[in-house]
Amino acid sequence: MNYDIIIIGAGPGGYEMAERAAHKGKKVLLVEKANLGGVCLNHGCIPTKTLLNSAKHYVHAKEAPEFGVTTGEVQFDLSVAMGWKKDVIQTLRGGIAGMMKKNQVETLFGEAKLLGSRKVQVGDTVYEGDNVVIATGGSPFVPPIPGADQPHVMTSKEILNVEEMPKSLVVIGGGVIGIEFASFFSSLGVKVDIIEMLDEIIPFMDNEQAVAFRKALKGKIDFNLGCRVTAIDGHNVKYTTKGGEEKSINADIVLMSVGRSPNLSGMGFDEAKLDFDRVGIKTDAQQRTNLPNVFAIGDVTGKSQLAHSATRMGEVALNTILGKKDKFRTNAIPWVVYSMPEIAGCGMTEEQAKEAGHTVESASLPLLMSGRFLAENGKKGAGSVKVVVDAETRVLLGVHMFGGICSEIIWGVAALIEAELRVEDIQEIVFPHPTVGEVIRSTMFQL
Amino acid sequence: MNYDIIIIGAGPGGYEMAERAAHKGKKVLLVEKANLGGVCLNHGCIPTKTLLNSAKHYVHAKEAPEFGVTTGEVQFDLSVAMGWKKDVIQTLRGGIAGMMKKNQVETLFGEAKLLGSRKVQVGDTVYEGDNVVIATGGSPFVPPIPGADQPHVMTSKEILNVEEMPKSLVVIGGGVIGIEFASFFSSLGVKVDIIEMLDEIIPFMDNEQAVAFRKALKGKIDFNLGCRVTAIDGHNVKYTTKGGEEKSINADIVLMSVGRSPNLSGMGFDEAKLDFDRVGIKTDAQQRTNLPNVFAIGDVTGKSQLAHSATRMGEVALNTILGKKDKFRTNAIPWVVYSMPEIAGCGMTEEQAKEAGHTVESASLPLLMSGRFLAENGKKGAGSVKVVVDAETRVLLGVHMFGGICSEIIWGVAALIEAELRVEDIQEIVFPHPTVGEVIRSTMFQL
Repeated sequence: MNYDIIIIGAGPGGYEMAERAAHKGKKVLLVEKANLGGVCLNHGCIPTKTLLNSAKHYVHAKEAPEFGVTTGEVQFDLSVAMGWKKDVIQTLRGGIAGMMKKNQVETLFGEAKLLGSRKVQVGDTVYEGDNVVIATGGSPFVPPIPGADQPHVMTSKEILNVEEMPKSLVVIGGGVIGIEFASFFSSLGVKVDIIEMLDEIIPFMDNEQAVAFRKALKGKIDFNLGCRVTAIDGHNVKYTTKGGEEKSINADIVLMSVGRSPNLSGMGFDEAKLDFDRVGIKTDAQQRTNLPNVFAIGDVTGKSQLAHSATRMGEVALNTILGKKDKFRTNAIPWVVYSMPEIAGCGMTEEQAKEAGHTVESASLPLLMSGRFLAENGKKGAGSVKVVVDAETRVLLGVHMFGGICSEIIWGVAALIEAELRVEDIQEIVFPHPTVGEVIRSTMFQL
Repeated sequence: MNYDIIIIGAGPGGYEMAERAAHKGKKVLLVEKANLGGVCLNHGCIPTKTLLNSAKHYVHAKEAPEFGVTTGEVQFDLSVAMGWKKDVIQTLRGGIAGMMKKNQVETLFGEAKLLGSRKVQVGDTVYEGDNVVIATGGSPFVPPIPGADQPHVMTSKEILNVEEMPKSLVVIGGGVIGIEFASFFSSLGVKVDIIEMLDEIIPFMDNEQAVAFRKALKGKIDFNLGCRVTAIDGHNVKYTTKGGEEKSINADIVLMSVGRSPNLSGMGFDEAKLDFDRVGIKTDAQQRTNLPNVFAIGDVTGKSQLAHSATRMGEVALNTILGKKDKFRTNAIPWVVYSMPEIAGCGMTEEQAKEAGHTVESASLPLLMSGRFLAENGKKGAGSVKVVVDAETRVLLGVHMFGGICSEIIWGVAALIEAELRVEDIQEIVFPHPTVGEVIRSTMFQL
């Protein structure tokens, strides 16, 4: 059986590439060992955002009296929220299946094995493809901490299916996933502690904003930074503080969210002599691996662990296959943390820009500069915008925000950076009033 | 008393220009006859958005059970909502006053009279300025319909201060203001009828989307299109349908929102020989009037009745005064209707692009393509994106949306249009996943 392209893994890297390749007339085989949609749809982006939406309804109903809306007692029904989450997942899975069918992408469920440059085995059958694309994703990394194998120590995958609301939660790791779950549970009244080894949460977040973000969550989430977990003794999470003190926190559930590892084993990558290491499969800017006609995209490459990066890498690989010039660029990939308040960024932080050798000019403004933000969040609404530019060329390097619906605002920054606009160009772009986004524009006038 | 710039009117055109001019070292006098912030802050954008935010909390609390949040009885307390609205206005007025003080803009309350190119009289004092900027805004237009002078026939200004919730409302005029108030009241259970003279609501909205938008509001708002109001007899609004039938609707309150007129009288414009007509003061692309060193910006020019257009015109006027090349362009000014669902657009609709002589290619997708949109709005969530491009050059001409927080998404489109990007360029821009905004990106792949 011959295909133009065989794609292993039906996450947002794989299925989007399959659709677009088929749309271009290519004969595509998409192999998936579990469910269409990959981690993103089944255990990641989508279920977390669905639950966070439920939590937001809870928080908004609680805050409603301030804005003139009274309610009876506000209660959270976890089983209904989980039911809606399941429904969303199934609906979207159905959507992907329909899209594959419509575009005549052949979908095959099973475990794939790479037999070399053009051959993939699934079960007993060997499939041949002019091109093979590895989009096998990643999995939560569980460090070898004593006690980490207990059932109440969960990764993001298991915690998405808890049947009862815990009273307390310890989150090990203050990255994106840790912060999102901490936000979800704390907003529903669960006592939440985050233990983070580094001195600050979310490594790619602007430093000043990270401090302000933590401050906004004071009394809701306890942040234990610079602390190293040494063991989980029953429900006691033991850790050493930066100063060397031994401490522990007791919690019903422990979430292990210290990072994710590429899925590399059991697929014949070693035997096929694919070049990879612990970080992922090595790829060039066109997503080519060391093996001819074998591409790798998404989390498995270790280049960028974001669903939309995976999709973009798939587009780059497809364009390369089609003979179109393209390149995976990392300078304008937006990212979002769907916490309450939300966090979003695109491009370099001030620290990153300095490290990269830029002479940096930056400016910040609070989101309370926006009348809409004030109206919708009250006088204590937390949030800010920070803009980073190259002081010599005046070209925009990055915008980092937290607060409001910054998740939906940030994409425009990717457009500004991709178009290589200078501050003066951006000042001529009109933002609608009254929006939260226009604080980006106002900040440009501080430079 | 001599100034570099005298600005008449402290709306978003005037006060923003005053701040920026002072920031550049100019000596500025800002004259205002009523309140800082103009219509936008005091009787327009900000109070409506504040009330709509309260209404959204009401609607979200009502919808919450679907997402796992129970609330008991949900009630709207108009006096609390109005109190918060007042608080927001006062806070923002204070913010502007503080900003003027900080930047050493001299603020003067009183009625201004233009005495010629460089002279403005306020009270008995004549102030001289190297440049004079007219930013006097506009007012609701009340057509000479019999009965329109009754107290329950209101404009947007009076309806913002109603003390009791009406049981029924007739909105005359289905433009932005009419739709926003209709949305506010109908979402709180008020029976709302819109009577619009034209065949469709919101003239600059994409036609297909306008139809879909009205459909989404079926059962909530009654749209009476192509109907001309002939009289308001007590509480009976009489109108003639397109087919010539005479009908009437009874309502507690009637909102007159058929348009706005520029504020041109009582300020000596005639005597000063300023060139204006019913539409507004005539200005060139640099906002110059026929009088040397006299500029006009905002609603009073009749060019674009949007707060952010006024601000932009002020920037253009300031740059012109400073000797910097600039121009007020209208091809990429985003606009928003803050209804539920929201509507937003930037650039040309398909109809406008065809009229302008383009060979048009367009594509649409429903917002339900977005996993986030599904999660947050349910399976019946209404909304779509439509993209319009020039079929020959592939350059983006416009994007029009409704649904979700499209108000905060649309600004990026202004960036895309200003940067004159083609479909292929935009396809390389990465949008964060999962967002509602990425449906814009998906739509680009349909072209």
